[in-house]
Amino acid sequence: MTPLKLTYFDFSGGRGEPIRLALHLGGVPFEDHRFAPATFPEIRKTAPLGQVPIVHLGDTVVTQGDAILRYAGKLGGLYPQDAEQALYCDEVLSGLEDITIKISATFGLKGEDMRRAREALAAEVLPKYLRWLAGRLEGRGGAYFADQRLTIADLKALVILRWISSGSLDHIPTDIVASAAPSLKEYMDRIGSTPAIVQYYAARSGK
Amino acid sequence: MTPLKLTYFDFSGGRGEPIRLALHLGGVPFEDHRFAPATFPEIRKTAPLGQVPIVHLGDTVVTQGDAILRYAGKLGGLYPQDAEQALYCDEVLSGLEDITIKISATFGLKGEDMRRAREALAAEVLPKYLRWLAGRLEGRGGAYFADQRLTIADLKALVILRWISSGSLDHIPTDIVASAAPSLKEYMDRIGSTPAIVQYYAARSGK
Repeated sequence: MTPLKLTYFDFSGGRGEPIRLALHLGGVPFEDHRFAPATFPEIRKTAPLGQVPIVHLGDTVVTQGDAILRYAGKLGGLYPQDAEQALYCDEVLSGLEDITIKISATFGLKGEDMRRAREALAAEVLPKYLRWLAGRLEGRGGAYFADQRLTIADLKALVILRWISSGSLDHIPTDIVASAAPSLKEYMDRIGSTPAIVQYYAARSGK
Repeated sequence: MTPLKLTYFDFSGGRGEPIRLALHLGGVPFEDHRFAPATFPEIRKTAPLGQVPIVHLGDTVVTQGDAILRYAGKLGGLYPQDAEQALYCDEVLSGLEDITIKISATFGLKGEDMRRAREALAAEVLPKYLRWLAGRLEGRGGAYFADQRLTIADLKALVILRWISSGSLDHIPTDIVASAAPSLKEYMDRIGSTPAIVQYYAARSGK
């Protein structure tokens, strides 16, 4: 197999983390190249579109988080083979990416502008997406977003739901998932307690 | 097969058009539900996340353009089966979606704000993406973005490249593709002259 190297910030979130989880849970060997924020200006000089995550397949470098995540999911058996189930999986991935884009758009703001933008996210935009996700989950049986089993849609959902409830985003209340969509909070806790995921973070916590 | 119904604005662009092209070229029967802009407020009341395109698979309704496009590509044989080629196809789809998002972000602006935002797109952002696309094309052999054949990445590229060179976007020069990436202009013209695509638009022009 072509050697696989993933390059992303050294933290357990963002667009890189679901890829790491997918490769790890799928048993796919890869080089987990993590870098500190101070190194990013250097990294982005050679990264396509100046973005991360990127993946190297031998000498070929590829960008775009969801594209890489889907590839990782296929390699690790965490992506539906059935076209209709893959559609459901992809729909949720795109909805989660919308959430990321809307939050990221507030990163450059300061003071009152930041507060207003974040409060609008917390009051309307995020609850709309969270209720939509809860509805999708219910529509697929309540346990997983697609294929009646854990897929990359669940991994990305876990990373993003944890992020928005972490308290690290000013003006986004940590109970936002529970208040907007209680069933999604239960889902998030259940996916987060998947033994392979718990073990992964337990092993990482010493690093 | 489950009956397929695509709902989108009645024009030959945006996130719906590559799906129509993929279903048409792939010989997949579908109901092409087109609506006038004035009808959108009514449509969005029942559309998931208030967005289009949406697709109905029987009674199940699904949103997110690229997810639907990938599904259409699979049904019509215009999506790579090989995981690495699918990664290349998905990478380009996501890059094209970035372009759409960056242009869409200027739609609400007026006057000087609009001019400044569009000029920044024309001077820096779009040329960066266009050169990146040209580099990707070259890296895959120069003819197509993935799988050495026409895929949904080429269909979405055609729709977006035509859009940004159409003159319908104020302050974006119609020669932007040719000046930023001449090889991409040749590619766009070549993909646009694919007989099935020419025939499709010839047949539509009477409607």
